[in-house]
Amino acid sequence: MTEIAKGLEGVLFTESKLTFINGSEGILTHLGIPIQEWAENSTFEELSLALLDAKLPSAAELAAFDAELKANRAVPDALLDVIRAMPRGVHPMQALRTAASYLGLLDPQSEDTSEAARRAISVRMIAQFATIIAAINRAQEGQDIVAPRMDLNHAGNFLYMLTGKEPTPEQSRLFDIALVLHADHGMNASTFTAIATASTLSDMYSCVTSAIGALKGPLHGGANEAVMDMLDEVGTPDKAEAYITDKLDHKVKIMGVGHRVYKYFDPRSRVLRDYAEHVANKEGKSNYYQILETIEKIVVDRMGAKGIYPNVDFYSGTVYSDLGIRKEYFTPIFALARISGWCASVIEYTRDNRLLRPDAVYTGAKDAHYVPMKDRQ
Amino acid sequence: MTEIAKGLEGVLFTESKLTFINGSEGILTHLGIPIQEWAENSTFEELSLALLDAKLPSAAELAAFDAELKANRAVPDALLDVIRAMPRGVHPMQALRTAASYLGLLDPQSEDTSEAARRAISVRMIAQFATIIAAINRAQEGQDIVAPRMDLNHAGNFLYMLTGKEPTPEQSRLFDIALVLHADHGMNASTFTAIATASTLSDMYSCVTSAIGALKGPLHGGANEAVMDMLDEVGTPDKAEAYITDKLDHKVKIMGVGHRVYKYFDPRSRVLRDYAEHVANKEGKSNYYQILETIEKIVVDRMGAKGIYPNVDFYSGTVYSDLGIRKEYFTPIFALARISGWCASVIEYTRDNRLLRPDAVYTGAKDAHYVPMKDRQ
Repeated sequence: MTEIAKGLEGVLFTESKLTFINGSEGILTHLGIPIQEWAENSTFEELSLALLDAKLPSAAELAAFDAELKANRAVPDALLDVIRAMPRGVHPMQALRTAASYLGLLDPQSEDTSEAARRAISVRMIAQFATIIAAINRAQEGQDIVAPRMDLNHAGNFLYMLTGKEPTPEQSRLFDIALVLHADHGMNASTFTAIATASTLSDMYSCVTSAIGALKGPLHGGANEAVMDMLDEVGTPDKAEAYITDKLDHKVKIMGVGHRVYKYFDPRSRVLRDYAEHVANKEGKSNYYQILETIEKIVVDRMGAKGIYPNVDFYSGTVYSDLGIRKEYFTPIFALARISGWCASVIEYTRDNRLLRPDAVYTGAKDAHYVPMKDRQ
Repeated sequence: MTEIAKGLEGVLFTESKLTFINGSEGILTHLGIPIQEWAENSTFEELSLALLDAKLPSAAELAAFDAELKANRAVPDALLDVIRAMPRGVHPMQALRTAASYLGLLDPQSEDTSEAARRAISVRMIAQFATIIAAINRAQEGQDIVAPRMDLNHAGNFLYMLTGKEPTPEQSRLFDIALVLHADHGMNASTFTAIATASTLSDMYSCVTSAIGALKGPLHGGANEAVMDMLDEVGTPDKAEAYITDKLDHKVKIMGVGHRVYKYFDPRSRVLRDYAEHVANKEGKSNYYQILETIEKIVVDRMGAKGIYPNVDFYSGTVYSDLGIRKEYFTPIFALARISGWCASVIEYTRDNRLLRPDAVYTGAKDAHYVPMKDRQ
């Protein structure tokens, strides 16, 4: 009897020193440090560097990394031309996948797969993703592309390039926290796809392009956009209870609820939830927040015992929406953060590389022969 | 004790009715029919359709499919503009990855992930890959792009668009056989990467773009180019014996020799070898052929007992080279064939989809805490 590991669930295929997840207790750590501590104390820049090098950087290392990121914020004009020439109304992730792939054509180092080159390309891509995603949004909206500013941090500069307006310190900090929360998450499907590509010793641009394609799917990065679709479908807070009860009664999947790994509260969702609560207490409860509050309560009551809890996608959408970001850009923003995890994981994996080559159980015809066309009915 | 399935070797993750491989006996079948029978009797068009629908087509079905392929040979002008604007001297697989991704921006159906849409997009991509790869080659060489002809079959039209010259029937047939031999090969790394992307329910263009990135690596599609590099390094047949003996004595990896799956002659290599022999008997032994002959003999004598035999990449390069194709285009040609296997495998997998989410053994720090910058050395 051959056993099939569907979805490769529970299959261990490598070692990693970067991220630890205990789904049943709702624990997520990077380098052994709980995600809550990263969110509270660190920045996206610092966590990215820590993941790339698998250690907490010194002040000098972080300053050098930050300067390198800033120096690489601008992207080649040839790429901006390609972004401007893209048809309007395309899915932003199709645009990002294409732009990331094109970037490889413009990088003289792209074919170098040494560890040093992989790292150098990673730093550039982390910096340039912000500029590319903002440029895609601006071009798709028919607006001028906004050049990066060097006096803002990564999160603040992205919001500036996206909107053309300098964000408040609170907005920058909130967005920075969201990036920190999404920077890495173990062997998720997009990181795994990046590794599968890397395992043939392919180049960094191929790895990242693959990861973007995987993140794009609604079972992965597309989920927070789907949560917003649900909130819009509910419409007003008074309809939330009837909506969600009906869905649960009919066993319809609720977006942003349940997770392959977490069977308890996703620790990232708690950080975002606390923030949303903080904003609600300060500025009053938005419609979205009230709907989420109602859905959360009912889901936890009815599904919690089965290990089904709201996940990070459940809250991130409202946070991004509060920042004035359109829901079509939620998944590109996920990529903006996860690029660090993708690159760090590829670098770690290729250090002791092994080609990924699983197998399928063959269930088709046996001992067949080619039938000449004239003998087929 | 946690067991790690390095490279996922031997891990079964799904069922498939398409391709069966018995590596120890050197057997490869599609739909239960040996690859030798496909090579002898069939065409790339027929095998592609058979893989997509998991059955031998009727004459009417094949004629309709053939007409559909022909109707889709032309690609949008906007894509040709992008291909022309690409910098010169880029890796053709970087160019193909980018062009395939861009094609998704131009397809109004690209976001449709229904099975019917996946199949329709697959047919278009199978047809358009020939035009795109030929166009990249022409543009990179500074030559005019050649429009497709409708009176030639897929293989013949590709050679025509690539070279601007109508191939002989024998050249077309040989190239068709090479495409048939490479159309599918079970859960190889690029097909697996396409499936990993598909498993998030991402779109076909994302799946195929990911697969191109994986195929590009030297441990996968890049191998036949590496074989040609080796033949060029050997130089003349009289140096082959000393060259290969030296490599084997020093346990240096020989390109095109050994395979993760095959521990006996790769059946595809036998078909190509027979062809190469046929040409050699008819037209005299080329330098390349003589070098290969010498290397093969020594490798089989010394390594055969260990299950190491020449693989398909060992012979395909010389065949392509005989057809006047530059070695930089061997991997794109691999993609030209494997697109059928990628698409068929994605369609089959997503019919009973499960998100791919394996895991890593965490070997990093435990119970650590964030250290304020002032407290780090």
